[in-house]
Amino acid sequence: MSEQWWQHSCWAADERVREQALARQQQLTKPAGSLGRLEQLAIQLAALQGEQRPGVKRIAISIFAGDHGVVAEGVSAFPQAVTGQMLANFVGGGAAISVLARQLGATLEVIDLGTATLLEPLRGVRHLQIGAGTRNFLHEAAMSAAQLALALDAGQAAAMRAREARSQLFIGGEMGIGNTTAATALACLLLDCAAAELVGPGTGLDHAGVARKAVVIERALELHRPASGDPLEALRRLGGFEIAALSGAYIACAQQGIAVLVDGFICSVAALLAVRLNPACRDWLLFAHCGAEPGHKRVLGEMQAEPLLDLGLRLGEGSGAALAVPLLQLACGLHNEMATFAEAAVSESPA
Amino acid sequence: MSEQWWQHSCWAADERVREQALARQQQLTKPAGSLGRLEQLAIQLAALQGEQRPGVKRIAISIFAGDHGVVAEGVSAFPQAVTGQMLANFVGGGAAISVLARQLGATLEVIDLGTATLLEPLRGVRHLQIGAGTRNFLHEAAMSAAQLALALDAGQAAAMRAREARSQLFIGGEMGIGNTTAATALACLLLDCAAAELVGPGTGLDHAGVARKAVVIERALELHRPASGDPLEALRRLGGFEIAALSGAYIACAQQGIAVLVDGFICSVAALLAVRLNPACRDWLLFAHCGAEPGHKRVLGEMQAEPLLDLGLRLGEGSGAALAVPLLQLACGLHNEMATFAEAAVSESPA
Repeated sequence: MSEQWWQHSCWAADERVREQALARQQQLTKPAGSLGRLEQLAIQLAALQGEQRPGVKRIAISIFAGDHGVVAEGVSAFPQAVTGQMLANFVGGGAAISVLARQLGATLEVIDLGTATLLEPLRGVRHLQIGAGTRNFLHEAAMSAAQLALALDAGQAAAMRAREARSQLFIGGEMGIGNTTAATALACLLLDCAAAELVGPGTGLDHAGVARKAVVIERALELHRPASGDPLEALRRLGGFEIAALSGAYIACAQQGIAVLVDGFICSVAALLAVRLNPACRDWLLFAHCGAEPGHKRVLGEMQAEPLLDLGLRLGEGSGAALAVPLLQLACGLHNEMATFAEAAVSESPA
Repeated sequence: MSEQWWQHSCWAADERVREQALARQQQLTKPAGSLGRLEQLAIQLAALQGEQRPGVKRIAISIFAGDHGVVAEGVSAFPQAVTGQMLANFVGGGAAISVLARQLGATLEVIDLGTATLLEPLRGVRHLQIGAGTRNFLHEAAMSAAQLALALDAGQAAAMRAREARSQLFIGGEMGIGNTTAATALACLLLDCAAAELVGPGTGLDHAGVARKAVVIERALELHRPASGDPLEALRRLGGFEIAALSGAYIACAQQGIAVLVDGFICSVAALLAVRLNPACRDWLLFAHCGAEPGHKRVLGEMQAEPLLDLGLRLGEGSGAALAVPLLQLACGLHNEMATFAEAAVSESPA
């Protein structure tokens, strides 16, 4: 098989600009290191953007939605119809991510990758309809190879549009009733751990529901264990359309030279898949927050990711990433606009 | 002695609005609780502001600066002249808090409470000059009773100006070479613990410097232990002008009905003093971040404060609080603008 697009090389960060940004941080009127994580953020954004004065003004948010066959096993607190209803809410402006995008001045696009019930076309939604949701991975692979390729391509296309708009930051969001189950199963397979270690309540399961979800995942892992060494096959067997699209988008952003801010648990699993498929994309991924889902910390740890926020979020939609955007903007503002010791005639520490 | 202004009662949060805000959060198109800390933030701001649609548009930042006699003991990595130099940098626009205030559209005022060397008047700085810095608390009380009252009043006056400007949020910042030493000594006295438990590098002491600082604080505590049960006397003996002003500002904001976002370690010690002086002010204090200084977590814990950010900050100036402002604004935006399940025709969880 010939090389696929997601295996192509990623854009390289500008190491000369990184050095310059690091040197500048040492000269700003503050004790060295006193702005903590914000200093590293500004330096990383400078290197990724290849700009001595980095910025996060143009932000592209793409929400990928899809349904999951495994919902038949009773793994979600919400009915599956909510996936479609929320698509209308996203474009109608009433969802959390709609409000956040508006407040941040970010562009928001919504991509329907395949809901269980075919929807009437919604103005403002890109309907790709790769399938009527995935198949139930308790019994069979969630996707065909062709569906997987279409989902990855949908993510790449979103990254291309972000590039076209000269976006300085890409945020992927997801919506899909049942998708913490798919993400947890994928994480278990990739990290070689038991369902009980990572499983959580998702959007609101009770204790009995979480226990049932763990049993479903454990049984699915028995069936799909042969894919454990092959991230692409793992994604095909256990993934959702939206998870595959996110992985594709993250890799394509790294190839296009667009910094990515990764949202919560599901997006982080998609990021882990992206890194397994193309390790060089890791450099382009910033991590917004550690969510409430128990598996999230483990998945972040696997990528040595240090998230910016820890606010008990578990909504998805890209909302946690949107909430972290001002930290990136303020980190750039400080880097770009603070006076140096020389400019302000302030004494440096003799240390 | 008659009752002092800081003992007067605080404004009461609106419990009816709090109930309404709580009910509204349950109806917004998201799983209940999925916005984590942001939900509580919006509800608290609604109750404090007495507004069903709270907002954080008008923000008042006051920086209080003062010098510390204890710097004679070699407890800081920076020369004392930096306090004055940074005043010029604040109003010149090159300091971190100047950049952040500009980016947030906040008003920034700078109050000189007393530098070791008298400064030429700086345009844009309020020079109160309560003293040529505090006295060295290793040997005597840092302030006279009259100086303490002036410093507390300076904080109250800042809160009054914030009220005059119809500010929806007050942020206090501080600048004062040596003030982590004063704040640590105060925290040790208030929390009855040894210097070694709370002492840290401040703006950049090395290991030897931290050890020296701990010895200085321990010796000072021997002298000032008699004040341990009296927060006002503790503040007079060990405080800085800027710490006293912050305590006064926090109490006065609570009396005026203005929500406060507390910055780092020094501000948190000032907040603890404010709560000891007038416990009802606690309800008005939101905590922005847990900084790098070791004593910070302990001081926050004493107030059951859950800070929003943990980014390794140790700059002061109110910078950590400024960085957390967008979280408050976005929390309000989500609360005010998200659609309800009924409005968006989205199915609620049957749970």
